[in-house]
Amino acid sequence: MQTTGGFTKLAEEVIARCRRLASFSEDACGTRRTFLSAPMKDCHREVSGWMKSLGMSVSLDAVGNLRGIFPAALSGAPLLLMGSHLDTVPNAGAFDGILGVVLALGLVESLENSKLPFAIEVIGFSEEEGVRFGVPFIGSRALVGRVDEHLLDRRDEHGVSVRKAIQEFSLNPEKISDAQLRDDVLGFLEFHIEQGPVLENLNRPLAAVEAIVGQNRLEFIFTGHSNHAGTTPMHLRHDALAAAAEWIVEVEGAARQTAGMVATVGFVEAKPGATNVIPGEARATLDIRHASDEIRTQTLDDLIRHAQTITAKRSVSVEWRTLLAQNAVAMDPFLTHQIEQAIGASGCQPHRMPSGAGHDAMILAEILPAAMIFLRSPGGISHDPAESVHLDDVAKALECGSHLLTQLSTSQEFLGRTCRA
Amino acid sequence: MQTTGGFTKLAEEVIARCRRLASFSEDACGTRRTFLSAPMKDCHREVSGWMKSLGMSVSLDAVGNLRGIFPAALSGAPLLLMGSHLDTVPNAGAFDGILGVVLALGLVESLENSKLPFAIEVIGFSEEEGVRFGVPFIGSRALVGRVDEHLLDRRDEHGVSVRKAIQEFSLNPEKISDAQLRDDVLGFLEFHIEQGPVLENLNRPLAAVEAIVGQNRLEFIFTGHSNHAGTTPMHLRHDALAAAAEWIVEVEGAARQTAGMVATVGFVEAKPGATNVIPGEARATLDIRHASDEIRTQTLDDLIRHAQTITAKRSVSVEWRTLLAQNAVAMDPFLTHQIEQAIGASGCQPHRMPSGAGHDAMILAEILPAAMIFLRSPGGISHDPAESVHLDDVAKALECGSHLLTQLSTSQEFLGRTCRA
Repeated sequence: MQTTGGFTKLAEEVIARCRRLASFSEDACGTRRTFLSAPMKDCHREVSGWMKSLGMSVSLDAVGNLRGIFPAALSGAPLLLMGSHLDTVPNAGAFDGILGVVLALGLVESLENSKLPFAIEVIGFSEEEGVRFGVPFIGSRALVGRVDEHLLDRRDEHGVSVRKAIQEFSLNPEKISDAQLRDDVLGFLEFHIEQGPVLENLNRPLAAVEAIVGQNRLEFIFTGHSNHAGTTPMHLRHDALAAAAEWIVEVEGAARQTAGMVATVGFVEAKPGATNVIPGEARATLDIRHASDEIRTQTLDDLIRHAQTITAKRSVSVEWRTLLAQNAVAMDPFLTHQIEQAIGASGCQPHRMPSGAGHDAMILAEILPAAMIFLRSPGGISHDPAESVHLDDVAKALECGSHLLTQLSTSQEFLGRTCRA
Repeated sequence: MQTTGGFTKLAEEVIARCRRLASFSEDACGTRRTFLSAPMKDCHREVSGWMKSLGMSVSLDAVGNLRGIFPAALSGAPLLLMGSHLDTVPNAGAFDGILGVVLALGLVESLENSKLPFAIEVIGFSEEEGVRFGVPFIGSRALVGRVDEHLLDRRDEHGVSVRKAIQEFSLNPEKISDAQLRDDVLGFLEFHIEQGPVLENLNRPLAAVEAIVGQNRLEFIFTGHSNHAGTTPMHLRHDALAAAAEWIVEVEGAARQTAGMVATVGFVEAKPGATNVIPGEARATLDIRHASDEIRTQTLDDLIRHAQTITAKRSVSVEWRTLLAQNAVAMDPFLTHQIEQAIGASGCQPHRMPSGAGHDAMILAEILPAAMIFLRSPGGISHDPAESVHLDDVAKALECGSHLLTQLSTSQEFLGRTCRA
């Protein structure tokens, strides 16, 4: 096994490859590479070339996931899935998703063609961000059999359906079921940038993800009475925005009081929205997340009760509707423990944390042991051209991954499991 | 003098006339009659007819103010100006402004052609709301010599300048200076609906207006850091909207603590405004009004300091810019006292209050004694088709006006004053 110093050169290559892939964009300036877009073909050609040079057999499944298999020491051996997504948001950075694909190839490269007791399939998911069709995770959904007719009928802003987009990419939507995972997959490992400031604040390069947090998204509508800002005394007002503001302060306070909780009001609007008119209506969204479903739903109930209390004393009314309600998804405990060990073996202090954002691992966890490794995000910046990684952190991630492959290769417990066992 | 019962029939006519004028509209549904619009000609024809039937001499000045003079007992006598505006907001009610013109004609009618020691000029101002050109009070500005070339060059949304609009209304912009008030005007009296809920809550029909409140309008811009709502822990956030919300609560609290103060945040916006993104910027307007300039500016300073304190502890920054800063305008103490006496003589409890909104009387007060009488606004509703008046309140206003004319006719103090004395 190489030392960390030995992984630095490989890390340089990984970063250079991520930056190279960022040049394949729908936009002249900045990176934007959505599901089945033209530059995705360039991206596939490039990544396929790297895969083939490692002796991997490459294929493209019917939803456009790029899949390369590095064979096991013995035929008939089970398979370890690794990777992340190749699509991006508009005005993206070079590492969100992409790093997890390229780093997995770096780990295959680090094997120097020595075979393991399991095959390694590196997958570049075609769709995770949900930009083109407003539905995320289309790539990983295909692997678990969750791309249905309803999803195929969905249209992008140009009226092109998912089915049509697949055909236009020279793929056959009739073959989507072939994309489903084989029965002998041991698990899924996803390296991903943290996209937040936690590891930077802890001064640690890597973390094992223990769960993808559950989340609720809601819209709250506060209704009072619109009135003249000059002629209506304070005690005769029913100001919808003042009520909403009091509640927004409560939302922040409640989240601050609960460890691991995040709650955000990202959108607010006052109507009619004139400087000299008391708002008769205020709309505000709520995004609330926690690794514990119980704590999350309890806090949400509290915040709804706060809204009712605040509005009642003002003779303002409040209604709300749920936009999204999603329970937390635990990562596989065995793999997560193995990741912690591998982080420790790489000379880093192991750290466990939840992921506040959704990832492909969340979808695959429905049918197989899935786990994630976070790399520190400098400045916590993501979904932005300034998104970056530290070279040393990528080297540590490669070293950690290398330890992990060794650990798993020698673990009878691991080798005895398959996803549909 | 007639009793209140005797004024009821006249009040019915006043209300019917206001409703009749509401039918002259630019819109097929609802009332919208902006400065120098086509339906304003119909309105002028109708009001001119009423003026002429009262023996008044009628003219239209060069900015379109309709002016009718009821002569004094003796030629060469000074003049009392009464009236309000004939233009409306979009989707207007029937009484804002219009009532002050029609009610003044009702008072002339109540004289039954008996002459007073002063002439009465009833004016229907052409422009008060500022809808067409974004500048209010064009009608009353002409009387005090404040229509300049800059204002004449201003254009409406169709690119028509004020000057051109005047010409298209068959008037001569070269003659605007002729609209200025003569030197022997004793004062200006404006009846107007309150447009707020104060008198209704006090269960009083009328009030004497002691001052038009001063006001500031500002825009505050809170700047924090935009970030992922799922991956950024609460203690590492710089949420611009949370800061703005805390400040909005403070604004309301500060205004509630100060008698006579109103402070309103009517507009708010969070950027980027996505459910799952921590707002990096929040914009909010502030409208603050009080009859005392000292109290208003002191409270404004406090609110700016609050914004600085709130943002400093969050490592968020705040900037602000002034959109409007206008000092309070006192109504004439003598006339206001006379109004209180007339209200009392009509069997009502006198009440003094500030006007939270601007009115033509505010402009005329620059050069002559001006005063206002408010009529109760049912439900506090104005600028809405549901705007109304109580028949009994209009009768009381006529009775009060009648007492007032009698008082002023016999007051040597009043008759000795002229606006430029």
